[in-house]
Amino acid sequence: MKKWLAVSLLALWACQQTALAQQPYALVVHGGAGADPAQMEPEEIEGIKARITEVLSRGLDQLKSGQSALRVVENAVRDLEDDPWFNAGRGAALNSDGEAELDAAIMDGSNLHCAGVADVRRVKNPITLARWVMEKTPHVLLVGPGADRFGQESGLEIVNPEYFITERARRALRKKQGTVGCVALDRQGHLAAATSTGGLTNKRPGRVGDSPVIGAGTFADDRSCAVSGTGVGEEFIRHQVAGQISQRIRLTGVSLPESVRQTFADGLPDDVGGVIALNRKGEWVMHFNTVGMSRGVADSTGQFKVAIGKED
Amino acid sequence: MKKWLAVSLLALWACQQTALAQQPYALVVHGGAGADPAQMEPEEIEGIKARITEVLSRGLDQLKSGQSALRVVENAVRDLEDDPWFNAGRGAALNSDGEAELDAAIMDGSNLHCAGVADVRRVKNPITLARWVMEKTPHVLLVGPGADRFGQESGLEIVNPEYFITERARRALRKKQGTVGCVALDRQGHLAAATSTGGLTNKRPGRVGDSPVIGAGTFADDRSCAVSGTGVGEEFIRHQVAGQISQRIRLTGVSLPESVRQTFADGLPDDVGGVIALNRKGEWVMHFNTVGMSRGVADSTGQFKVAIGKED
Repeated sequence: MKKWLAVSLLALWACQQTALAQQPYALVVHGGAGADPAQMEPEEIEGIKARITEVLSRGLDQLKSGQSALRVVENAVRDLEDDPWFNAGRGAALNSDGEAELDAAIMDGSNLHCAGVADVRRVKNPITLARWVMEKTPHVLLVGPGADRFGQESGLEIVNPEYFITERARRALRKKQGTVGCVALDRQGHLAAATSTGGLTNKRPGRVGDSPVIGAGTFADDRSCAVSGTGVGEEFIRHQVAGQISQRIRLTGVSLPESVRQTFADGLPDDVGGVIALNRKGEWVMHFNTVGMSRGVADSTGQFKVAIGKED
Repeated sequence: MKKWLAVSLLALWACQQTALAQQPYALVVHGGAGADPAQMEPEEIEGIKARITEVLSRGLDQLKSGQSALRVVENAVRDLEDDPWFNAGRGAALNSDGEAELDAAIMDGSNLHCAGVADVRRVKNPITLARWVMEKTPHVLLVGPGADRFGQESGLEIVNPEYFITERARRALRKKQGTVGCVALDRQGHLAAATSTGGLTNKRPGRVGDSPVIGAGTFADDRSCAVSGTGVGEEFIRHQVAGQISQRIRLTGVSLPESVRQTFADGLPDDVGGVIALNRKGEWVMHFNTVGMSRGVADSTGQFKVAIGKED
C-alpha cells in the first residue's frame, strides 16, 4: 500500500512539473517613452540598456524559480526606482517647486487586487508603498501626506526628500523621459503589472498622471492582459488606455496586438507615448508612437531583447 | 434684394429653432447610493427630495434656455455641495483625523476635456476647482495641498476647513451616504458629467475614491453616454465602471440600459453602489444594487421624477 502511495505522489509531482514546464513565463520592461537615441549621450544609452538587461535577467531567474508575477514586477520596478537614469524614485523629474513627487501603482491579474499612490515625497520605493496599500488597506488610491504617513507607519524605508533629487534632474537639461514599468507572467499562469514615475518635469505640485491610476497607466487581468504605460499621462487617463486594451480583448475578442493598435488609433494623439503588454499565452507587445521607448523583453522560450529606438 | 436677405435669415432662424426644438434635453441627478428610506428620519427624506427637486427644476430651466450641459452639471453639483444633507462640500464625511477631504470631477462629452481634484481641504466648491483645472491647466488630476493652492491662485472661494464640518457629520451616527452627481444633455446635443464627494467616513487621510478619477466614477463622451457613479469607490476604480459602460456601447453596440446591466454583472460585488447615465437620445438609466439611491430625472418630454428607495 505504501508503495502505491509513493508512486501516486511521484506521478502527481511529475504531472505538476510537466504543467510548470509547459506554462510559458515572461517579463517585459519599459524605461519610458519619448527617448530619442539620436539625442542621447552614448553613456546614457549604455547605462539604460545595461540596467534593463540586468532587470530582465534577474526577473527571468525569479520567474523560472517559480516566484509570482506580482513579486517580480515589484522587484523590477524597485530596481529601476533606485537607478537615477530613470524618472522614478531617485532621479525623478522635479515639479515647478523643484521637488520630487512620486506616483506608482501595482495590480495582480489573478484577483484584480490593486493600488496606486501619488504625490509621495518621503517613501524610498513608491512601488512597494503601492503594494502595501493594496495588501494592508481597503483603498486603491492613496495620495499626498497621507500616503507618506502610511508608509512611515508601515515601517517602509523613509528618506529625506533630497534623496530623490539628482544634479542631473536639477539641471533638467532636457525633459526627463523615463517612467518605468514592468509586466510579467509567472509559471502559475498569473499576470501582474507595475508602473512608477516622477511625472512631468515642471509639473504643477499635486499633479497626478496615469501611472498610479488603475485602468489608465497600469492594469492586469488574467482574463485579458497586463499593461504598463508611459507618455502623456493626461491622455492615458482620458482614454483609459490600459483598461481599454483589456476591455477590447474581453468584449470583442481581438488579439493583444490588435487591441493595442485599435486603442492607439481611437483618439490618442500622435507622439503620446507607449505601452508594454503581455497575456497568459506569453504573447507580448511593446508599442509606442514616440520616436523611441526604452524597453526589453525576456521569456521562457529564450527570447531576450533590449532596445530604445525604432530600428533597434 | 434686402427683402430676400431678410426672408433667408428668417428661414435660417426658423430652421435652427426647429432643430433646437427637436433635440431633447435632460438631466439626471444622484445624491448617493446606500440610503435606506426605512432607516431615515422623515425630515431627512423630505430635505433630500426637496433639494433634488429644486436642482432638477433649475437645471431643466437652464437647459431649456440653451445653456451647455457642462455648465448645468457644474451648477447642479455646486448646489448639492453647498447643501449639508449630502456627503459633498459642506456636510462631507470626515476622515480618521476628523477632517473633511473632498474629491470631485467634471467631463465634457463634446471634446473629452476633463479633470478631477482630490484631497481638497480649503476650496469651497471642489466641482468648480475641477472645472478650473480642466480649463486652465494641461492636467486632468490635481490633488492635495497643490490643488488647494491652485484654487487660491485662481481666485476661487477659499474657506476655513471647519466650514465643511457639520455637527451631523461629526457625530457620524451612521456612515455618510451621499456622494452627489449629475449628467446632462443640452439642446446642442452635448453630454456632460460631474461628481463630488467627501468619500468614506473614517477613511485614511489621503484616500482617493472613484469620483475624481475619470473613467471610474465620472465619464462623458457624446459618442456613448455620460455617467456619474456612487458607491464603494475602490470597486468603481478597479472595474472602471463609468468608462466600461461607455466602452461597451462603443465596442459592442449594446443599448445604454444593457451596458449598465452588463457592467454591474461583470464582477461588481452586491451592494456596491449605483450610477446615473444618459445618452444623446435622452435615454437615461438610474441603476443601483444597494437598498436605495437618492435620485431624480427631468427632461424635455415633461418627465419629472424624484425617488430614494427601490419602490418609489
